[in-house]
Amino acid sequence: MQNPAMDDSLKERATQVISAVKAANMTIVTAESCTAGAIVSLLAQSEGAGDVLHGGFITYTKDHKTAALGVSRRLLQEQGAVNADVVKQLAAGALERSPATLAIAVSGVLGPERDEDNNPVGLLYFCVLAKESPPNIVREEFGQEPHDQLLKKAIHRAFDLIEAAAKYS
Amino acid sequence: MQNPAMDDSLKERATQVISAVKAANMTIVTAESCTAGAIVSLLAQSEGAGDVLHGGFITYTKDHKTAALGVSRRLLQEQGAVNADVVKQLAAGALERSPATLAIAVSGVLGPERDEDNNPVGLLYFCVLAKESPPNIVREEFGQEPHDQLLKKAIHRAFDLIEAAAKYS
Repeated sequence: MQNPAMDDSLKERATQVISAVKAANMTIVTAESCTAGAIVSLLAQSEGAGDVLHGGFITYTKDHKTAALGVSRRLLQEQGAVNADVVKQLAAGALERSPATLAIAVSGVLGPERDEDNNPVGLLYFCVLAKESPPNIVREEFGQEPHDQLLKKAIHRAFDLIEAAAKYS
Repeated sequence: MQNPAMDDSLKERATQVISAVKAANMTIVTAESCTAGAIVSLLAQSEGAGDVLHGGFITYTKDHKTAALGVSRRLLQEQGAVNADVVKQLAAGALERSPATLAIAVSGVLGPERDEDNNPVGLLYFCVLAKESPPNIVREEFGQEPHDQLLKKAIHRAFDLIEAAAKYS
């Protein structure tokens, strides 16, 4: 599997994102499910990350989403992990458990197979949440593509959303 | 910067680590400071990860170590983030906030510069903690080497410690 962190365009984007967050006098935390730390890793490699990146919560299993970030167990049981309410709770949970002022949450299915709740490969939800602002929730259907391609698209989309939140804050 | 996740030896080791944890009927969570998610990302890429990897806490700043994992603010202020007590609290905090039965924590200085508390490049602390067992704390002085080399060494050392904890549990 090719690792997306090697992708120069992603590294460049990460540096731009860190700059945008810094320019907005904001600080950031991630809450990642399917991306499993790829977003926080890329941001951490960027110059200036020490000033704006507080960290991230990698919540791979449902039980960990509940234990680490307080996502409703019932919600996860009844509606699975890939929906608007879950990413909203992931982002809110991360923001509550961090000094950061901006959170990005991602949950979705990168494949190669459907998830345990039969969600299709390529379906992703994102939530960007700034303190004292309404959440910005985005649903994407990237379709059935190779895992690495979907991971790159997920990271790019997350970066776009963080940058937009920083620029228009 | 070359990303260590591209290193085939690390991917192979990650798969072995996941197998060892699974064979021990354990589940795992990471608490990462300087490695910034590299350990959890590599583990997540391994076959079988879904059964044993719950997630990770990436605690990049001191404030986030306190907010996310309950590390003593006073300890961080007085002794910095790179010492035995901090990794112990990181591991314990992660274990408390996850369904996992085994936690690995890493805090250290990968460089290229000393940290804000003047800790030297190459100094790292690791803590492996299994539920109801005493912590295994390891101090390493890898010396002044390039960031990527130190990151690889840190990941390998963490993998060795997890595997040992799983094998002799």
